[in-house]
Amino acid sequence: NSDHVMSETGLCLPGALWPPAPLKMPPRTTPPPPDPFYCSPFGSPYFNRCVPVPRRHTPYFGQPDYRVYELNKRLQQRTEESDNLWWDAFATEFFEDDATLTLTLCLEDGPKRYTIGRTLIPRYFRSIFEGGVTELYYNLKHPKESFHNTSITLDCDQCTMVTHHGKPMFTKVCTEGRLILEFTFDDLMRIKSWHLAVRTHRELVPRSVVGLHTQQDPGMLDQLTKNITRQGITNSTLNYLRLCVILE
Amino acid sequence: NSDHVMSETGLCLPGALWPPAPLKMPPRTTPPPPDPFYCSPFGSPYFNRCVPVPRRHTPYFGQPDYRVYELNKRLQQRTEESDNLWWDAFATEFFEDDATLTLTLCLEDGPKRYTIGRTLIPRYFRSIFEGGVTELYYNLKHPKESFHNTSITLDCDQCTMVTHHGKPMFTKVCTEGRLILEFTFDDLMRIKSWHLAVRTHRELVPRSVVGLHTQQDPGMLDQLTKNITRQGITNSTLNYLRLCVILE
Repeated sequence: NSDHVMSETGLCLPGALWPPAPLKMPPRTTPPPPDPFYCSPFGSPYFNRCVPVPRRHTPYFGQPDYRVYELNKRLQQRTEESDNLWWDAFATEFFEDDATLTLTLCLEDGPKRYTIGRTLIPRYFRSIFEGGVTELYYNLKHPKESFHNTSITLDCDQCTMVTHHGKPMFTKVCTEGRLILEFTFDDLMRIKSWHLAVRTHRELVPRSVVGLHTQQDPGMLDQLTKNITRQGITNSTLNYLRLCVILE
Repeated sequence: NSDHVMSETGLCLPGALWPPAPLKMPPRTTPPPPDPFYCSPFGSPYFNRCVPVPRRHTPYFGQPDYRVYELNKRLQQRTEESDNLWWDAFATEFFEDDATLTLTLCLEDGPKRYTIGRTLIPRYFRSIFEGGVTELYYNLKHPKESFHNTSITLDCDQCTMVTHHGKPMFTKVCTEGRLILEFTFDDLMRIKSWHLAVRTHRELVPRSVVGLHTQQDPGMLDQLTKNITRQGITNSTLNYLRLCVILE
């Protein structure tokens, strides 16, 4: 793989390789709007707020993990009122028009691999929240980047997808695995392919609830110890992915 | 407070106020090194790696939460071998020479307020890990910024300080409260004052451990339900802060 340069996030590349600007930048088939006050779809009157296009503030080159940070921030802004339009705008901001998303995990009946195309991506993320999740973010530990001619790959072997569930009691689910993201190497830096390989998951419950339930109602222990996800993925998301396989 | 502009993270400011460059930039008393290849103390041969000074890649103006993101990334790089030199470099990268750090929380015997000066800040963060913490990061939800002439304030009413503890069993402690950070408004954007007001905390234990222990050893429930922190703060950090009060 002599066509790319490995570097751990935040490390200096040798002077000759940094900044990466001299690398050949491929022409976009759909160039970004030239208007300096152009706003992303989130800035439409529909949302009644104006979100600047990321490239105006942040040079992402060499730091694709910043894009994941921004994706997390956008997910924070989701509310109960976020509809299809909101999720479409979300996908448009972070995913290329021909992006694919793959989730691999090992269920009770064997390993599964789900790959969906761009049009189904908005509903994939939406399905997570429809499954009772109130918060979602991706925590990357020691992500590594590799630079190619037309793309940047982020490879994080210690990715944790953190979800908060409110019912039947507050639960924090940490889905651990490897996240490999391929970004287009241009000023929008959108995701071409998303691959999350789930390795394991941990469901965490408040210590206080354990004490409360075991003292007052030993029968509640059953509920307390029963997982609410399968390998960290809710049933609503799994059902959606199965439907996608049929649809595509 | 007519001298500053409030904005939620990621929102467009009115054209007249954005970019904030026209705002008066105060001269630094200690200017940053002019060498474009200057590396932060983390880039010394001692660490055998070269970390670029943040200003080379990221224009922080208007996005102080990016600095917290970078602080989190730096904390990820801490290892068991990280010594005083490492922690000094950490503090130098993120805190002004005259910075202060304040922690307020309510203990069993009443409200406490600890304020420490710059020289004691490295050991404050170190004390967290000495208390058995293996991971530490700050998660900001809906942080708000206000721009002043010489500083930027980040005010986050929904800040969660997340710590991982390995003993006696894996525990994730979420310390929730309000984080107010005042940054110097220059290209290094270091913290002048750090104020974390702890509101509440939650200690989370793995669901699997609850089932295991209650089935095999009901006596373990005691240990399972006993908090390992006080309001999310370890005893080693509390002891350190008490010592600081005596020292200063």
